Amino acid sequence: MTFELTILGSSSAVPTSKRNLTAHVLNAHERFFLIDCGEGTQLQIRKNKIRFGKINHIFISHLHGDHIFGLFGLISTFSLLNRQTDLHIYAHKELEHILENHIAYFERKLPFTIVYHHLHPEKNEIIYEDKRITVETIPLKHRIPTCGFLFKEKPHLRNLRKNVVQQYEIPIRERQNIKAGADFKLSEKQIIPNAELTLPPYKQRSYAYCTDTAYSEKIISIIQNVDLLFHEATFTEQLSSQAKKTCHSTAKQAATIAQKANVRKLIIGHFSGRYKDVTPLVEEARKVFNPVFPAEDGEKYVVELERES
Amino acid sequence: MTFELTILGSSSAVPTSKRNLTAHVLNAHERFFLIDCGEGTQLQIRKNKIRFGKINHIFISHLHGDHIFGLFGLISTFSLLNRQTDLHIYAHKELEHILENHIAYFERKLPFTIVYHHLHPEKNEIIYEDKRITVETIPLKHRIPTCGFLFKEKPHLRNLRKNVVQQYEIPIRERQNIKAGADFKLSEKQIIPNAELTLPPYKQRSYAYCTDTAYSEKIISIIQNVDLLFHEATFTEQLSSQAKKTCHSTAKQAATIAQKANVRKLIIGHFSGRYKDVTPLVEEARKVFNPVFPAEDGEKYVVELERES
Repeated sequence: MTFELTILGSSSAVPTSKRNLTAHVLNAHERFFLIDCGEGTQLQIRKNKIRFGKINHIFISHLHGDHIFGLFGLISTFSLLNRQTDLHIYAHKELEHILENHIAYFERKLPFTIVYHHLHPEKNEIIYEDKRITVETIPLKHRIPTCGFLFKEKPHLRNLRKNVVQQYEIPIRERQNIKAGADFKLSEKQIIPNAELTLPPYKQRSYAYCTDTAYSEKIISIIQNVDLLFHEATFTEQLSSQAKKTCHSTAKQAATIAQKANVRKLIIGHFSGRYKDVTPLVEEARKVFNPVFPAEDGEKYVVELERES
Repeated sequence: MTFELTILGSSSAVPTSKRNLTAHVLNAHERFFLIDCGEGTQLQIRKNKIRFGKINHIFISHLHGDHIFGLFGLISTFSLLNRQTDLHIYAHKELEHILENHIAYFERKLPFTIVYHHLHPEKNEIIYEDKRITVETIPLKHRIPTCGFLFKEKPHLRNLRKNVVQQYEIPIRERQNIKAGADFKLSEKQIIPNAELTLPPYKQRSYAYCTDTAYSEKIISIIQNVDLLFHEATFTEQLSSQAKKTCHSTAKQAATIAQKANVRKLIIGHFSGRYKDVTPLVEEARKVFNPVFPAEDGEKYVVELERES
């Protein structure tokens, strides 16, 4: 039951020799969700030893080049490797038009189908759901329609304690009810209370991805209590007017959102290339919130399983 | 008077964790010619510490994605860095249409001008010329119109020997003639022969870039005697039918071209991703021609100045 984020690229629009363009991969229960796809993403996927075949869902925050120019090469590579599985792309509807034009010219016929899911970046809505995970959009505030993504485990069931199945000879048909909280009727007279049979469930783990965006308090209620928040911090407060003008955030603003949303851990990134050393951004954020981590290409963040108390 | 090639990417259409997509930079007398521009080229340019501002001429062999998908990001970065200088792109005319559509959507207005030079890949013609360098096309044999490029120094003048200017008090107006081979009339009676005044000129250095292509003897006369030949070697002879089908070359074929064209040094590249170790390709080529070098990302090849004898 992995819940692990890999940072593939942490630069803003102009990459540096150390920072690739934006892309993250979240491995949630062996679903490998690719989030944004800047130029060079397929190379970063390879370098980080993520298997192309595992990537079936791509989430695109907005249609600025630094978040999507890697799609052309990635789709081309999928095609050359003769991918057969459907590829789901969640993005503003214009991307379909852009990609289909591109594919018609460069790829002719793909051996797989792209299933486009048109997003409405101004709304908070569930866009993906399976047995274990939901993904919803987080409306952001940028120069063009943009949304973040909240990845969240569905509620876990309680876990049966070791040996109780043998001890009370619990039939298979009862186990699901017990995991859901029911007591177990051992005989007409003897009822084993649920607390004796089970451990509390694991907490729902969650990851919120918020870039590119100006400071926006509207997102706070949506990302409340997430385990991991990635929030862009393109500039320090010294350049807050530049942040405002370009609809980006300062490190302090990112930390303020983290603090108000009561998240567990904040990762900042999408750093302007002017910061060769990102210490000033981290220090600025840490004055408001802790813990703060600066995104670095190739770094992984694991959210461990933890039981509710 | 540098003449130095940097390999930015050496993979074929599918990159690997060690090999980026195709791009070379030739520094010829501080002109930095970018040759092809696969995805990630701007990142490789950065990593190899080549200044973006130095790149004014881009040569595109053909319009397959693995040779051009880096243009989108590179142009975007040039725009974000507020480039003012004209950018010259030499390519099949369709690229203008592709790029202009793309720019209209993603960049709106660029702060610099792109000057398109439409190539006729079926012809061998001079497409660039300045005081010191010429560039001509090399018709190649691929699935779509494709050409290679021959970069060549113009003939050098002879060099004045040390101290002769002072010794014979040679006026400035005479020096250019002497460098071109003239004797010097010291007085009515005394003529100093040119050989006493000058050293033989430097040889013209040259680099030929040939990818993607099937084996084609038509190129031999064009690339005769070049110092450096880059010729693709996507496959070994074992996969020669695959090479034929996809219009690529084997290592043996690349070496045969090098041998017949009497080049000084052969670099092979554009390796299929199936070769984790390219030793078999190098060994196959070395049976026909020497010296052979396998292209590696980030490697440099310097052609030193050498006098004619």
